[in-house]
Parts: sequence; structure tokens; C-alpha cells
Amino acid sequence: MDKGRIRLTGETLTLEELERIAVYGENVEVVEEAWERVRAARKLIFDLDKRGVAVYGLNRGVGWNKDKKVFAQFYDRYNRNLLRSHMIGVGPECSQEEVRAMLAVRLNGFLCGHTGVSEEIVEYYLEFINRGIHPIVKKRGSVGEADIGTLSGIGLVIIGEGEAWYANERMSGGEALKRAGLVPLLLGPKDGLGVVSSNAQGAAFAALGLIEAKRFVERYRCVFCLALEGLNGVMDPMDETVNRERKFSGQIESAKKCREILKGSYLLEPSQERALQDPLSFRGQSAVTGAVTDALSYAERQLETELNSTDDNPCLLPEEDRMCGSANFEPLSWVLAVEMVSTGLAHMSKMICQQLLRIGDPGFTKLNRFLTPEEGAVIAYGTIQKTFSCLDAENRMYAGPCSLDFLSMAGHIEDLASNSTMVSCNMRKIIDNLYYMAAIELMHAAQAVDLRKPTSLGFGTGKLFEAYRRVVPFLEEDRDLSCDIEKTYEFLKGYNTSKI
Amino acid sequence: MDKGRIRLTGETLTLEELERIAVYGENVEVVEEAWERVRAARKLIFDLDKRGVAVYGLNRGVGWNKDKKVFAQFYDRYNRNLLRSHMIGVGPECSQEEVRAMLAVRLNGFLCGHTGVSEEIVEYYLEFINRGIHPIVKKRGSVGEADIGTLSGIGLVIIGEGEAWYANERMSGGEALKRAGLVPLLLGPKDGLGVVSSNAQGAAFAALGLIEAKRFVERYRCVFCLALEGLNGVMDPMDETVNRERKFSGQIESAKKCREILKGSYLLEPSQERALQDPLSFRGQSAVTGAVTDALSYAERQLETELNSTDDNPCLLPEEDRMCGSANFEPLSWVLAVEMVSTGLAHMSKMICQQLLRIGDPGFTKLNRFLTPEEGAVIAYGTIQKTFSCLDAENRMYAGPCSLDFLSMAGHIEDLASNSTMVSCNMRKIIDNLYYMAAIELMHAAQAVDLRKPTSLGFGTGKLFEAYRRVVPFLEEDRDLSCDIEKTYEFLKGYNTSKI
Amino acid sequence: MDKGRIRLTGETLTLEELERIAVYGENVEVVEEAWERVRAARKLIFDLDKRGVAVYGLNRGVGWNKDKKVFAQFYDRYNRNLLRSHMIGVGPECSQEEVRAMLAVRLNGFLCGHTGVSEEIVEYYLEFINRGIHPIVKKRGSVGEADIGTLSGIGLVIIGEGEAWYANERMSGGEALKRAGLVPLLLGPKDGLGVVSSNAQGAAFAALGLIEAKRFVERYRCVFCLALEGLNGVMDPMDETVNRERKFSGQIESAKKCREILKGSYLLEPSQERALQDPLSFRGQSAVTGAVTDALSYAERQLETELNSTDDNPCLLPEEDRMCGSANFEPLSWVLAVEMVSTGLAHMSKMICQQLLRIGDPGFTKLNRFLTPEEGAVIAYGTIQKTFSCLDAENRMYAGPCSLDFLSMAGHIEDLASNSTMVSCNMRKIIDNLYYMAAIELMHAAQAVDLRKPTSLGFGTGKLFEAYRRVVPFLEEDRDLSCDIEKTYEFLKGYNTSKI
Amino acid sequence: MDKGRIRLTGETLTLEELERIAVYGENVEVVEEAWERVRAARKLIFDLDKRGVAVYGLNRGVGWNKDKKVFAQFYDRYNRNLLRSHMIGVGPECSQEEVRAMLAVRLNGFLCGHTGVSEEIVEYYLEFINRGIHPIVKKRGSVGEADIGTLSGIGLVIIGEGEAWYANERMSGGEALKRAGLVPLLLGPKDGLGVVSSNAQGAAFAALGLIEAKRFVERYRCVFCLALEGLNGVMDPMDETVNRERKFSGQIESAKKCREILKGSYLLEPSQERALQDPLSFRGQSAVTGAVTDALSYAERQLETELNSTDDNPCLLPEEDRMCGSANFEPLSWVLAVEMVSTGLAHMSKMICQQLLRIGDPGFTKLNRFLTPEEGAVIAYGTIQKTFSCLDAENRMYAGPCSLDFLSMAGHIEDLASNSTMVSCNMRKIIDNLYYMAAIELMHAAQAVDLRKPTSLGFGTGKLFEAYRRVVPFLEEDRDLSCDIEKTYEFLKGYNTSKI
Repeated sequence: MDKGRIRLTGETLTLEELERIAVYGENVEVVEEAWERVRAARKLIFDLDKRGVAVYGLNRGVGWNKDKKVFAQFYDRYNRNLLRSHMIGVGPECSQEEVRAMLAVRLNGFLCGHTGVSEEIVEYYLEFINRGIHPIVKKRGSVGEADIGTLSGIGLVIIGEGEAWYANERMSGGEALKRAGLVPLLLGPKDGLGVVSSNAQGAAFAALGLIEAKRFVERYRCVFCLALEGLNGVMDPMDETVNRERKFSGQIESAKKCREILKGSYLLEPSQERALQDPLSFRGQSAVTGAVTDALSYAERQLETELNSTDDNPCLLPEEDRMCGSANFEPLSWVLAVEMVSTGLAHMSKMICQQLLRIGDPGFTKLNRFLTPEEGAVIAYGTIQKTFSCLDAENRMYAGPCSLDFLSMAGHIEDLASNSTMVSCNMRKIIDNLYYMAAIELMHAAQAVDLRKPTSLGFGTGKLFEAYRRVVPFLEEDRDLSCDIEKTYEFLKGYNTSKI
Repeated sequence: MDKGRIRLTGETLTLEELERIAVYGENVEVVEEAWERVRAARKLIFDLDKRGVAVYGLNRGVGWNKDKKVFAQFYDRYNRNLLRSHMIGVGPECSQEEVRAMLAVRLNGFLCGHTGVSEEIVEYYLEFINRGIHPIVKKRGSVGEADIGTLSGIGLVIIGEGEAWYANERMSGGEALKRAGLVPLLLGPKDGLGVVSSNAQGAAFAALGLIEAKRFVERYRCVFCLALEGLNGVMDPMDETVNRERKFSGQIESAKKCREILKGSYLLEPSQERALQDPLSFRGQSAVTGAVTDALSYAERQLETELNSTDDNPCLLPEEDRMCGSANFEPLSWVLAVEMVSTGLAHMSKMICQQLLRIGDPGFTKLNRFLTPEEGAVIAYGTIQKTFSCLDAENRMYAGPCSLDFLSMAGHIEDLASNSTMVSCNMRKIIDNLYYMAAIELMHAAQAVDLRKPTSLGFGTGKLFEAYRRVVPFLEEDRDLSCDIEKTYEFLKGYNTSKI
Repeated sequence: MDKGRIRLTGETLTLEELERIAVYGENVEVVEEAWERVRAARKLIFDLDKRGVAVYGLNRGVGWNKDKKVFAQFYDRYNRNLLRSHMIGVGPECSQEEVRAMLAVRLNGFLCGHTGVSEEIVEYYLEFINRGIHPIVKKRGSVGEADIGTLSGIGLVIIGEGEAWYANERMSGGEALKRAGLVPLLLGPKDGLGVVSSNAQGAAFAALGLIEAKRFVERYRCVFCLALEGLNGVMDPMDETVNRERKFSGQIESAKKCREILKGSYLLEPSQERALQDPLSFRGQSAVTGAVTDALSYAERQLETELNSTDDNPCLLPEEDRMCGSANFEPLSWVLAVEMVSTGLAHMSKMICQQLLRIGDPGFTKLNRFLTPEEGAVIAYGTIQKTFSCLDAENRMYAGPCSLDFLSMAGHIEDLASNSTMVSCNMRKIIDNLYYMAAIELMHAAQAVDLRKPTSLGFGTGKLFEAYRRVVPFLEEDRDLSCDIEKTYEFLKGYNTSKI
Repeated sequence: MDKGRIRLTGETLTLEELERIAVYGENVEVVEEAWERVRAARKLIFDLDKRGVAVYGLNRGVGWNKDKKVFAQFYDRYNRNLLRSHMIGVGPECSQEEVRAMLAVRLNGFLCGHTGVSEEIVEYYLEFINRGIHPIVKKRGSVGEADIGTLSGIGLVIIGEGEAWYANERMSGGEALKRAGLVPLLLGPKDGLGVVSSNAQGAAFAALGLIEAKRFVERYRCVFCLALEGLNGVMDPMDETVNRERKFSGQIESAKKCREILKGSYLLEPSQERALQDPLSFRGQSAVTGAVTDALSYAERQLETELNSTDDNPCLLPEEDRMCGSANFEPLSWVLAVEMVSTGLAHMSKMICQQLLRIGDPGFTKLNRFLTPEEGAVIAYGTIQKTFSCLDAENRMYAGPCSLDFLSMAGHIEDLASNSTMVSCNMRKIIDNLYYMAAIELMHAAQAVDLRKPTSLGFGTGKLFEAYRRVVPFLEEDRDLSCDIEKTYEFLKGYNTSKI
């Protein structure tokens, strides 16, 4: 993919732009107004210090140490210590994509102009993205009230410590800077806190997860439509008027897209063999997927608010020539939304399972049991039901509200948390499992279509079927299904739905 | 309260109107356009039957029996049997308020004009509300894909069976009709299904719960502000600019209301004894409550869509002279939202606990331990910490995604579910627990204020404190705190925040 | 039932004895050796105080107040205050049966001779049981590290405060004492702590729950066997040798009892129509029920250890003329066991649901769908599937490990908890739901037997069927099933399995 | 480690032996009586087939296909197809240690003499272990009613398909056989089913997990004792008499071992600075760890029953010259026990967190905040609290009863499940997290000891401290704590507690 350059303003970052930076490796640039805001906040820091104002993280310690003074001559030492002592994560490590997303989120956050870090710090985030310096960041270690214990990994590289990937090679932070033509920075007041006190990790994970969820829903819809053709199912529940009268926007959109995918399908013709009504797992697909889409819209809106607003504490207000304590790093509003999305995805998981159980059942398909081409001789898709039952059990677990499980820390100054990173990781684990499950559904759907031999497939399902059969052939004889699952999973993760 | 009359249109019912009907006993009336829609749908039913179209629930059985024919001469018998066999709930029973809400929700749903029941059925819902006939309905028995197994309780009373409350007396359904001057109805085609195939119970519970949640948040805010005065806490996190720059609308509103409540408070004056920053449970209150408010807004929007759209299957489309199968009874979009609200409320539960632990701690308040008036002699609020720990554990349990736990039923035709009623009941149990917890916080807050003797309380907190102290006096000596909790709980449930 | 008199020794209390005291209202007596232990411990208290040893709860405060001194002249006041300030529970209230169980557990605990309360206190527990004075105790308010916040309800009545039931009438504690011919006690050192610092509530709830679980399993087994006859199922999985070779004792016993119940059944004769293998929910019944029985045995053993050992802190050791701090009130070992039982019961819940789904399915029974006597005309047991799905969802919720959700309290001195009362209540809620579910299974089983008309029922199933049909007749026509469920539930709760 | 040779009998396999085979690579041998049992069962298979008895998995299909006949001339094809179609797992892959454990469990199971596979099959399991042929087996794909969908990976290698590790190199199954000097086997009747129909995977995971848990508890105890020395804590709660009077065997043992570890410690001397009582997280350690030990004993007993009994269906009974259908593959009894262990371990997780919060708090230690060597200059162990909060949240999630979440599969013949593999994996994930948490506690404990400089450490803690300080030095300056955690984690996983 051709690398573009995303304009960051501190106010306009979208999930799609973030994906382009993180996943497709695009570069970034920063608008001048944003630089001005960064400089104004920095200037205010020094003004306040001069005026003798006690500033948390500047001339006072952080957390429980908010009662400890920090003197100007020790700013560099204090901020170094802050970064080192905040380096407390445990594995696994974030992928380079995830680190790019984190860099971009934090960079855009700086541009709101309420942090007060030095301009150089901000520039380094931009340079890290554009030169491909990707600091090693641990995945676990944040409780999601600013990801202070993991973002420190980025800060260490800025001062020439820690570790990083550069040009896909892993090396010390100092070496990475050197190779990329940069020098370690000295830290001034609030620089350490400014680097770590941000929800950049949780928000980056959530953003990647929400994008993945949206992509998954699109791909899944195609798989579902093919499965409906495999079943010889009823299209009524996707009727335009019926869905319009229900008034839920996700459901309306969902039904509409299914109708497009199934344009031209034999399902639009009457059939003697078709049931009056399908099982709810098929009939309710637009509603269930629509509910997830509604949830995703809400989550996206809340998360984009996070991406384009300040999460700094203290919050510098240069226009009012003051700073103010805040709890703006509290991310709960979007964290709740992400958990809702996870629960919604877990409902899709249940729905897929039930569709699969039905499509293996001759009572519903009038095809052979487990879609075998030859009863008695070939076993086909019997045992594979265990696979999705087992993945669904995991999804049920990941759908729990883990945001609620935290300790009161830091001498009880930090007595709330949101576990935003864990919440987001759990959502992404569900999505990965769903890809496996949708892969198994695609295997069934294609097999059922091959057995049924309908007169015509839909516009979108026809394309899908054809592309898929180039990768995984009809199951004529029993074979290692583990391999088929893996191939189908890869196929589906790369399937382009843009032209349906 | 003066009883008004709410106009129902099938398109405009709000949560507040529903509360007025259910909780304040207001009557309803139906606009003429809506009656026309009801009649048009009914006419279509007969037309379709005449044309020999197979209609689910009319001339075909429901659920797995969708393959069984029903003949015209047996409509009454079939529909009676349907109501009786659908009577499968188990206790406890719904309150009369809940039943009124269910009647109103179903009535408004009929008015969308997609059900096809007889006009008389619809009129009976209106009459039941206005004459105060409240059928006995069991609380448990729905899986939340239309509450078919519990709404049957209403249907039985319509045909003169079952049981009902009338004029606050419990009696047989036939007796209730008689006393209210009504006669049992004979059932025609689709009448049974039309009565039971609706999310009226789940939606009614959810609506009452969301209203209660909103009321709770308002009352809680006052308690919190008084607790902040008890703590001598920092007001910075409620600063207007700081919250505006965070951009989350719930948080902005939350901070604004706190500033109003605290207008005139001594907290606005500088104080040597005040900390630089409060614990997060205090500092983050606007953000956490704001997150719940955001979630509530989303949930309210989704639920009002449910209240004002069709959940019928089949869905009659008189304007297009046809009917169409649907899964419009799938409520998942708002059920997910309600679960999000529950998780949000469980976060408020955690927050309240942490505030209470801090306010009992001299390290934070500089008052006596456990807010005793006399250390060593009076024990005061020590053991009471167990109470809220224990309620919080319940809330953690009720916040789980129980919507995901269901069976595949009815010969696997009904293989998805949402548990909408249980989801909504769980939310309401959390709210009730929260009232106990907020009561305990109010006890602490008032005690702390009494011990601290600040120069002035805020506009809203002053009123609260004064009103509360008329009910529960200062804790001078150890006394039975169980009683104090109960009194404070009742006080808080009735506290009017409209003038703050 | 004839009231006996249970001998308490401090070392030999069984669950069955506790049931007799609590549920069947039997009286108690205390052996002389135990009284001697009580007196020895009391004597030690005064000796220690004289020697000037700092004793927690005697001459030092409790919890965070462990640094506060208590002087001898204030013992009564201090202990009164302790009881009052520990009165922090919230509703609902314990049943009289539950209170009797609590009294007996605490009384037996005193008899271990490690508490140090006055002999009068101990006598009052005995008198309360034998005279039927049942103090009002709240159900919620303990975190299960000794139930200090709820057991205070008993203490208040001892000193003539609080409230109690006496002769089934509710009155003030003072009045109850008076009517029963007792006077309020004055409190000496450690008396307050001795009353409240005990797991008596959690252990009493757990004991009642474990007994109920055992009873339920016995009754359920009969229902299952009748259902197997309704199904015309396979008896192989209950074969003696096959189960012996599996070696799990619960399973071996479970299969054996089923064989006894089914002695003489037509299932022992060959049948052409019988399947080669039944669904796992039937086939695995002995194994699943056996797993629960294994878990119950472990739980019973752990709980009986609790009932017959000290949970005092400090722990008085008169034989060694000293006392010693302890955490002997930590009940985790049996709390974990109770949670295991709950999960096991939730598996039975799943199993019952699956059995019911199968027995409504002609594919498995070769009887009519939903066991209707007449397809098309009578709907029978279709919608009722929602009832058990809904109860099963609750059971899934109650099976969660709520013991893990607690706060760090009392200035972080009490920073662990077990939620033993909630854990036990959750188990009992599952059991109550299971009775409803087993009731529904009995309805199905009897209906299937009536439809199938087998040549002979088993020894135990024959009795059950006959007794049940005197209460609930064959379902000839659709009728209100909610009533049938309720009647069957009551029938089952009272069903005597002792003669099978 | 010197490789021994474990004698397998089908009746005596212990967890410790399994560890030696799996983890330490020891070889196995089989006693002659066991071979005879294997041959007798095989002979019975052929006898039954000759007599024309319908045998599930022999001359009839499995699962829903139990109504399909299989003819003798197709045994090899049928059994191959069975293995291939049962190959349905998804990643990650099992480690070689895990595969060895699975081989040993299945081998020992064959030796019970109830399976009926050919002697060659049994020999190949022995040879695979002894020659180091480790088939690739996927971790996910079993629902824990026999691990039929993952054990197929072993079967494929036996017939020269699939993949395997040999001499630490990965290759095709055929190649692995060849290099090891074996030839692919032809399959006879019931061979396929015999290979896959076993709980070998779940039981192997559980066994490894239980062993790891026991090891962890031993190591953790040493860490705790050092932490107690860091705290200058009270030894009373480990008093011999006090624990004996509590009567829980795990707690008694736990306290005893702590006393041994702390023999000679300064904690045995009086100290003015010591508190009267420690926080419950310290005081209750023996009780909490003891509860886990009790649970482990129960789990070990139940699992060893599984390891040494038949889980075959049908179950061959050569001594009675018949076979019999069974549900002996139902593992619920030990699965419930493993879930209890997980909950217990999650309580240890909470306890460690609370200990760590206390040990960073000067109010409890009288040392510097967060154990810094120099307040204001060095931040030390502040942020690291997030790490364990975050791991504890994961542990809370993994402690949920996931055994309850399954589908009804295989045409509802397999309508129960236990998720034994997921249950066991979750336990092991908790244990791994606990190692990280105990590592963090060791860091704190050693730092506190260094700061406090006590006169003498205990017998066991002295050794631990000395060994640990050779790996990780005193924290003089802030440094990357992520590295310290990792080093300490590795240290602890390898720490030998056998000589304390």
C-alpha cells in the first residue's frame, strides 16, 4: 500500500486514520496551530514554576509522593527516575503496529496543548512514527488510569535507554536513536509525567480493536449470506420495510447490506422446500449484527472523543494562564462502550455457533448430516462442533466486565481504575476467536452450497464462494480439518469486502 | 399527585411518560390515527387468511409448531390454549407499577399498527390502565425474545381467567373484569400471539430501571458534594474549562451540576488544610458519573426506539397489503445498553466504597478515625465498612453479562435469547443496593460536616444537610446503625432534587 | 416431629444435628466437660488482664482501633458500644430457622473453650434455642471474616436491646427476654467480641445449604429415574461393574441408588424401540450427580471442621495459661468447597435443562412433540422451556466465585475476606431454582410415562408417580402451567425419599 | 537429571511420576499383568463383533452417527477417517512436555484393560514416550467430554500422518516414525475411537497444573516468610497450638512449614516496634494457603482417580465377557476440584496484592514509602503496584467457572460438557501470573530486609535472601523494574525448596 501522510491537528483523528498509521505504516505531519499550542503550554509550565505554584509532576512528586518537592536543578534526574521506576510492565510485548498506534495517539494528545512537555518530546513522537523507531512496550502493567507503567517504555528510548525495533531489528534504545540519526533528549519539568500520563496504550488497543470489529462484521456478513444460501433460508427478515419499521439504525443497515450481497441469489425466488421461518440464529442475524453495529457506533464516538481531547493532569490552560488539577485521564466512558461491544461480539459468537449446529442438521438443511458428501463413508463436520463450542466458552469469559477488578493503590490516592488495556485486549481476543468461528462457518456454507447446487448465488456470495474455493476445495473425503480451519481463517482475515 | 392523561401515538412514548403512567398512576388516551392503524392491520389479517396465506400464529402454530395448521373455527380455542400453555412463569410477582408499565408499553406497541390483534384487545389494555385492572404477572419466565411466557398473564385476564389486582384487592381475572364493568373477550386470529409476542415486560423493567438510575445519579450527586465538604476536598476537577476540554458530554454536565450544588460552599475558598489532590474516588467523580450518564443517554435512546417501534412477528404491513416474517422482537441493541449501564453503575458502587474508606481515614480527613466524636469511647463508623463491601460484591455479580446465558429452545427454532428481563432486574438490584450505599455515604458526609463545622455549605448541600438532620441526628453515642441506614435509605429514595 | 434434645460437646456437631435443631426445632444440652472449658477460658481472661497483658477486644479496641486502650471500669459500656456500632446489617432478615442454626453454631463454638466470654453468655445461647427466643438478624452485612456486623443482632437481645421473635411474635429484645423469663445481661471483658467474632452466620447458612443440597440430590434422583422411564432410556450407564471400574465414589453411589429406584422397571427388559445410547444428559447423570456428591462430601467434611473448632481471635489457651493472636476466623477452606458445590449444582442445572429439551423432542422419545396428548390441538410443554432457560441463567450467575470480591477495610487491617454468607446464600438460591427445574422435569416425566404407558415402573419411580398424580393430574388440555409448576415444586420439597 | 524408568500398571500412576515422565523426560515400562489386560480386552472386541453385537465405535459410528453401521472390511478406512475428521483443533500448540504427559496418561488408561485397542497401538504410546516422538497436538478443540478433537493429533502420527517433534526437530508424522525406526500402523476396529476417546489432554494439563500449584505454594511460603521479616511481623498466627485447635490440616501444615522456614529469625525475639496484630493479609497467610492446600489435596485425589481408572465408552469388561455403554469419560468430579483450586489460587493472588500494598506503606513498616532508600530522590516501588493489580484482574477472570459454558452438540447426543482443558489452562495461567506476583513480593521483601537490617533471618529465609541477592541487587537508584521482575520470576521458578 502506498504510504500517505496523515495530518494531525489534535482535534480530528479518526479510527481509520489511526489504522493507516499503525497498520499500513503511513507517516504523519502536524499542523502549525497545534505546534503553537504545544509551545504555549510549555511556556506556561515555566511561568508557573517561576511564580512558585506547586505543580503535580513538575515541582511535586506524583501519586502518593504528591507531597514531595522536586527542585529545578534535579528536573532531569527526577524525570529519568520517574521513567525508570515506571517501567514495570510484564510480557507479552506489544506488536510494532500497536506501538505505532500508541505513538500516534499520544502525539495527537500532545497537540491539544494541555500537557506542557517540551516541543522536542513532541517532535520525537512524530519522528519515531515517520522514521520507524518502535520502542519495546509491555502489554501488561496498566490499570487504565493513564497507562503510566507501560508508556514509560517509549520515554526510555527518547532518553537513549530501553529497547526498540528499528528497521525490523531489535536493539537498545540508544542504538536505535543513533541509527535513525537522533540524539537522546535531556528531560525538563513535567516531561516524564507528560510521556506516561496518558491513555495512549488503552486507547490504541481499543482503536485497533474497534476497527477490527468493524472489518469483521463486514466479512462475517458475507459468510452469513453464503450460509443462508447453503441453508436455503428465508429472506423475509431482511425485508426493507420490516426493518425500517423497527427503527434501529444498525439493523436497518445490516439488512440492507445483506440484500446487496444476496442480489441475484436463488433465495429471492420461491422454493417449495424452504421453511416458513428459519431458526432465530438465521432469522435474527440482521438484528444481532445490527445491535453490534449500534454498539460500535457508540464506542467509536466515545473513543474518538478520547483521541481528540486532553487526558492530562494537571491540565495546562494557556489561554487562561493557569493550570488545573483534573481527572481527565479517566477513560471510563469509552471503556464501558468497549465492554458493551465485547458482549455484543460474544452474542455474535453464540449466533454463529447456533447457525453452525443448524447447518449440520438435516432437519433444517435437508442435506446430509454434518454436510458429508456420503453418509456412512465420510464423517465430515461432526467433531468440529467442539472447536466452536470451545472458542465460544472463551468468548463468554472475555465478555465479563473485567474493568471492575482493581485495587486501591498508591497510598489510596489512586483508588479507582478501568483496566482499559485488558478490556481492549479481551475484545481483540474475542475478535480473533470469531475469525476462527466464521472460518468454520465458511467451510460449512461452501460445503452446503456445493451439496445443494443452487441455480444462482448472490452478487457478493458468488464472489466469496469462488474466491474461497480457490483456497480450500470441496470436502470429498475426510481430511485434517485443522488445516482447513487455518487456511480459511487466513483467507477470511484478508478478504476484501469493499466491492462486496 | 394530580393524575394527568398521557397521549399515546405509537411513536412518541418517552421514559418519563411511562414513569407517570406506571409510578404516578396517570391515565392514557390514544390518538385517532393510531386507532386507524390498529384497524387496518386487523383487516389485513382477515384478508390474508381469506387469500389462504400461511400466517405464523394465525393459521399456523408458533415456535416449533409452525408446521401445524390452525383452522378458523378453532381460533378462540387455539388462542385460549396458547395463552394457557404460555402461562409458565415462576415467582416473584411483578408489582402493580411494573404491570402498568407493561400494559402501557404493549399498548403503545399495538399502535404502531403492525400486530393485527382485534381493536377490542387494544381497548382492553387502555381500559386496564385507566380502570386500574392489574393482572398478576410472574417476574421470571422470559428469555427476552418477546416475553411470551409471562405476558400471557395479561391475556388470561382479558379472557376472564387468571388473576388480577383491582382497587388494590387481589381476585380472579373474571371477578376483576366484572367489578370494573368489563366482559371477557373472545379471541380471534393472532390475538393470542399478539398479546404475548412482545418485549413489553423486559422493556418495562428496563424503562423503570433507567429512570431509577437517572434519579439515583441526581440524588447521589448531592450526597457526593456533601461528602466532598466533609472531606474538605478539592474542586479543581469540576472546573468548567478543564471539563469542557475533555469533551465528554456526561462529564461536562456532571461537573456543571456539582458546581451548582456547591455554589457558595467553603470549598470555593482557599484552605491551608486542603490537599493538593484528592484520592481518585473523589477527584474522578464527575468523570465516572459522567460515563454513567453517557451510557444512560445511549440506553435511553435505544430503549425509546423499542418503545416506539414494532416488535411483532409476523409484521403486518397494511400500506403494502402484505405481511412479512421478521425477528423484530430481538431486543439486543438496548439489552446491551442496559448491561453497559449496569457495569457503569457497578463502577459507581466501587467509587462510593472507596470514598467511604477514605472518609473514615484520618489521613485524608484530619478528623477522627471512623468519624467518631470521641476516640476510644465511641466506635462509630468502623464495622459499617463491611456493609458496603458486601453490597459491592453483589453489584459485581449483577454486572455480569447474563444476556449470554441461554439455551436453544423450541426444537432449535428459538436458538438465541437476550434475557432482557433478568438483565433489567439485575440493573434494578444494583440501583437498590446503591441507594443503601449512598445512604451510608450520606451518614458519613453529614457526620464529617458536623465534626468539621465548615463556615458555609453549598446551595444544594446546605438544603440536603438540613433536611437530612431532621431525620437522622448526629452520631454522639454508638447506636444501632442498621436503623440509621434504613432511615437514610428511605430519606434518600424520597429526596427531591428538582430544586437541587 | 417429636422434639429431641441434641447433646453439644464442642467437638461432635454434625450437619444433621444442626438441621434437627434449626429446622425441626429440637432443643440442646451441653456436656459438663464443655462447661468446664468455658469457665477455664473465662478465668484466663481475668488472669491475663490482671497481669497487664494487652488483649485485643478485651483491654484493646478491635480492627483499626487495636491501638486504643479499654479500661476495666468501662467494660460494660465498651462492649455495649461494640455491639451497637457493629449493628450494620441490611435486609432481608434471616428466617427463624436460620437464627436457630446460628445460635447453635456459636454455642458449639464457645464450647471449644477458646473464647473467654462469661458463662452466662453461653447459657443465654442455650436458653435462646430452648425457649425459642430468636433475635432479628440481618442477612447482609458480613464479609465472611467472622460475621461481626450481623451476629451483633443476637448480642443486642442478650443485653435487652434489639428485636426478636418469641413464640412467633415479633417484639423488642427486652420484651422477649421478659416474656421468656430472662433478664438482660451486663457485659464483661471480651463478651462483645466473643459474641460477634464468629463465622456462625456463614457456617449456619452453609450448613443449611449443604443439607438442602443433599436432600435435593436424593429427590432429584427419583425424578430423573422417572424421566428415564418416560424416555425409554438405556440403563447401561448405571451398570454396577462399569461404575465400579470408574472408581469415583459419588458416581458409584449414584448409580447404585438409581438401580434401586428402578428395580422392577420395564427399562430392565429389552426393547426394540430403545436407542443404543441416550444423550449425554441422561447417560451421564450418575457421573454428574456423583461429582456433586463428591463435592458435597468434601464440603461437609470441611464445614464440620469449622463447626467443631475454634474461630476465636485472640484464641485463649487455658491449658497453656496463655492466649495467642490468630486468624482462625478465616473460613476460606470450606468457603471454597461451598463454591465448588455451587458450580456442581449449576452443572446439574444444565443437565436438567438438556434432559428437558430432549424429552420434549419426538426424535428422542418417539412421543408427541412437547408431550402433547394431541398434536395441533393441545400445545402442552413448549413455552415452559423458557422457564428453565431463565432459571439456568440465574444459576450460572450464582455459580460465580463471589468470594473474591471484597474491599480492604478497617484501615487495611482487614484486607482479606471470603464473603461466606453471600457464597452460602448463592448456593441456596441455586438449590431453590433447581427445585423449580426438577418440578418441571417431574411434570414432563409423569406426562411421558402417561403417554407411553410402560408395562411396569420401578420400585421408587412407581411410588413417586402415584404420589405425584394425586397432586397434579395428566395434562389433557392446555392449562395454566404456572400453577402446575408451583404445586409440583411444593410436592417435591416435601417428598420423602427415605423409603425411596 | 538422570532419566529413570517409571513402571506403569494402570492403577498406580501419581502426579509426581507423571511430572518425571513429562517434565524430566523419564522413560516408562509396563507391567506384564497390564499387557494381559490389554490383550484380553482386544480379544473381546473381536468376539463381540463375531457375535454380531452392535458396538459403538466398532461396527457403529460415533456421536450422532451411532445409527450408522461400519463393516469389517472398512475398519482401517473408517478409523483413518475418524482420526482425520476428528482433527479439528486450533492453536496454540501443546508443548512437548504437555504431549508427553498426554501420552503417559492415555497409555496408563489403556492398561486398565477396558479399551480394546490393539496391543500395537498401546506399544506405540510407550515407544513415543521412550523414543521421544512427540506428535503435534493443538491446545484448543476439546470440550472436555473426552478430548476427541485434539488427541487425534497423536493418532495421525501413529498411522504416519500429521506432524511431530522428534529429537527436537519438527517433521511430518511419517518422517518421525521412520527416523525413530517405526512403521505406520494399520487400524483395526475401535482403534480410532480408543485413541481419541479419553480425557488424556485435560487430565495431563490438570496434572501439570496441580504439580505447578504445589511447587508454587512451597516457593511462595519462603517469599512470604521473608516479607514477614521485612515487615517485622507477628508470628503468633503460626503458633502450633493455635493452629492445631483450628483443625484444618492444610492450615496446620502451612503454619508448621513457616515455623521451620523462620527458625532462628529475629521475629522470634520480642520487639518494641512490632504491632499487636498484622493486617489480615499477613496474619491469615497460613489459613489462606492452607485452604489452597486442602483444595489441592482433594483435587489430587480426584485426578489420581481419573489417571488410574477407565474413561472408555463402550467399556469392555473381559472378566464378564461383555461390554457396556458408559459415560465414564465424564470428568466433572475432578474438573470441579480444579476450578476450586483456581479460585483458591485467586485468593492467594488477592492476598499477595494486599501484602504488597501494606509493605509499601510506612504506616505498617515504619520504613520509607514504597521502600525507597531515599525519599524524594528515589521513587522505588510505587508504580509497580499497577503490575500486580493488573495481573490480579486477570486471575479474577480465570477463576470463573468456565466449565459451565458449552453447547449441545452432535445432534444433541453430546449435550453436556466440562471444558476440562480450558479449566486446566486457566488454572495454569493463574499460576504463571502468581509467579510474577510472588516475584514482585520477593523484590519488596528483600528490599525491606535490606532497609531494616534485622539481627538474623530465619533458616529458610536466610538462604533465600542470600541466593536472591546474587541475582538481583538492592535497589539503590531507580532502574528498569521490568527487568528486575523478569529476573526474579526466573529465579523463583527455579528455586529449590527441598532443603527449605
